Amino acid sequence: MAVYTEVSDQELEEFLAGYDLGAPLSCKGIAEGVENSNFMLGTERGTYFLTLYEKRVAPADLPFFLGLMEHLAARGIPCATPIRDKSGKALNQLAGRPAAIISFVAGMWHKRPTATHCAALGQAAARMHQAASDFTLRRPNALSVQGWRPLLEASAPRAHEVQAGLTDDLQTELAFLEANWPGKLPQGVIHADLFNDNVLFLQDRISGLIDFYFACNDALAYDIAICLNAWCFEADRSFNITKARAMLTAYQRERTLTMEEREALPLLARGSALRFLLTRLYDWLHTPADALVRRKDPLEYLHKLRFHRGVRDIGAYGIE
Amino acid sequence: MAVYTEVSDQELEEFLAGYDLGAPLSCKGIAEGVENSNFMLGTERGTYFLTLYEKRVAPADLPFFLGLMEHLAARGIPCATPIRDKSGKALNQLAGRPAAIISFVAGMWHKRPTATHCAALGQAAARMHQAASDFTLRRPNALSVQGWRPLLEASAPRAHEVQAGLTDDLQTELAFLEANWPGKLPQGVIHADLFNDNVLFLQDRISGLIDFYFACNDALAYDIAICLNAWCFEADRSFNITKARAMLTAYQRERTLTMEEREALPLLARGSALRFLLTRLYDWLHTPADALVRRKDPLEYLHKLRFHRGVRDIGAYGIE
Repeated sequence: MAVYTEVSDQELEEFLAGYDLGAPLSCKGIAEGVENSNFMLGTERGTYFLTLYEKRVAPADLPFFLGLMEHLAARGIPCATPIRDKSGKALNQLAGRPAAIISFVAGMWHKRPTATHCAALGQAAARMHQAASDFTLRRPNALSVQGWRPLLEASAPRAHEVQAGLTDDLQTELAFLEANWPGKLPQGVIHADLFNDNVLFLQDRISGLIDFYFACNDALAYDIAICLNAWCFEADRSFNITKARAMLTAYQRERTLTMEEREALPLLARGSALRFLLTRLYDWLHTPADALVRRKDPLEYLHKLRFHRGVRDIGAYGIE
Repeated sequence: MAVYTEVSDQELEEFLAGYDLGAPLSCKGIAEGVENSNFMLGTERGTYFLTLYEKRVAPADLPFFLGLMEHLAARGIPCATPIRDKSGKALNQLAGRPAAIISFVAGMWHKRPTATHCAALGQAAARMHQAASDFTLRRPNALSVQGWRPLLEASAPRAHEVQAGLTDDLQTELAFLEANWPGKLPQGVIHADLFNDNVLFLQDRISGLIDFYFACNDALAYDIAICLNAWCFEADRSFNITKARAMLTAYQRERTLTMEEREALPLLARGSALRFLLTRLYDWLHTPADALVRRKDPLEYLHKLRFHRGVRDIGAYGIE
């Protein structure tokens, strides 16, 4: 939850004068998004999102993120998309920060997604992968296997505070993944953060994908591995094979996974589990316990990692 | 900035079923209000505020707050007002908290209000005081002179960390105010927190007063004293007599201050300055410096207090 930069009414009026959206009618800081300052902006034309990009987002990456959203929206993918100003620019400055106005996507995220929701997500992810296939900008995935060692090293000295033996476990896992990470899978643009709070629904239909600020080029199947971890485990930590089957089957109706992708999926799922474990562990150890940002439990992802370690083939995910 | 309680999509749907507002279309936590959890709620009927009352608000006070908003709105005062459910109740339960749906007030607050805005505020405050004159519920002001000593005692041992000699200064001031606090001024319902972020404007007209969660029964002129402190000092700490004159003149066009109120105003302004100084001081000393709640500088109100100490009569505020 965060609004790091305050915007005065005068700054906002001047900023909005550059757009064709009429005068501002309201502007409320949103307690969502740990990375940026977000506002729900009402103008004479309608409701929008106003995002000020804070220091954890590299300004050089913004054309990729905003361009991707626009590219996908133009191809019919339901997603948030930037609004261009009168001169055609999607990215501007406000209160000393890079800033953009983004379309407001109506919809609610599901705290406990059902198999129906998982199927909708699988279909949307595949369509997104296909729609992005002719997107020309590139952004490497800084949080793929090459990025995990520095993250682990930053947390290793204190990882035992979270669980005894955790450092050794993670070192072994990382060494294995570094040695065995698949290099030749079909590549493309992935969202890389398709958690349930980034997928909005109206009733059981997806109304929009949001928060593209981790999107990058990587193995397409890695995006699915992230979704498997984020959507198919229950609160009691059990893996729900019905949800996984629904998600993967719906995905494959749009884009069939190659043999290599299917074989790699358990490994990709281990990698994805390690990636979120490592960032959560870092935040856990480096965020004061009394700060108002809610820290996410890193051990949730240790359990997911261990589940995938026991997986021999994709049958464990409900498909053949 | 705060969302202390998370609401699941399922809980929200069940809650909304009790209202005549249609299905939820969106629900975003708002980074406003330190006391409660606030959400901007979109439904098939429109946009609303959803407030979950957290532990700093006494449930027993909620009928007063909600009843007052409804009372004022019914008398044409532009303000947020609760929406009643199908059974006529304004106050319900959500996620284990008392909760209410409040009308959404379009408008922006002014970071640097002009004399025009101060005049609009003066008029609105007077009209609010008059419209509340037949409101029958009562709530004593827990943050009036009787409440200041416990606050000071909670901070006194560490007040010197903020400024050397501060404890002595505040002890002397409090003793003086306790001995001289006026007891017989015209009483009524006051908002008690009419800072500029609680007064929304569309262009230069007030579109709504919000955040009635400090409202109480007290001397009406004490509300004006709060407004003088909140609206009539410049960023360089100078007092802007033009703004004060505009505010008080507009107030008196609706409701003339009695001779006693005019005489008491400098003292009430000192008291109001001390009250905000004491709560800010408490928060300053009891909030971790790295917490994401922005602490407000208590010394801003020490300067205001000292200004009013030098005031001999109401001429210093621009009126006779």
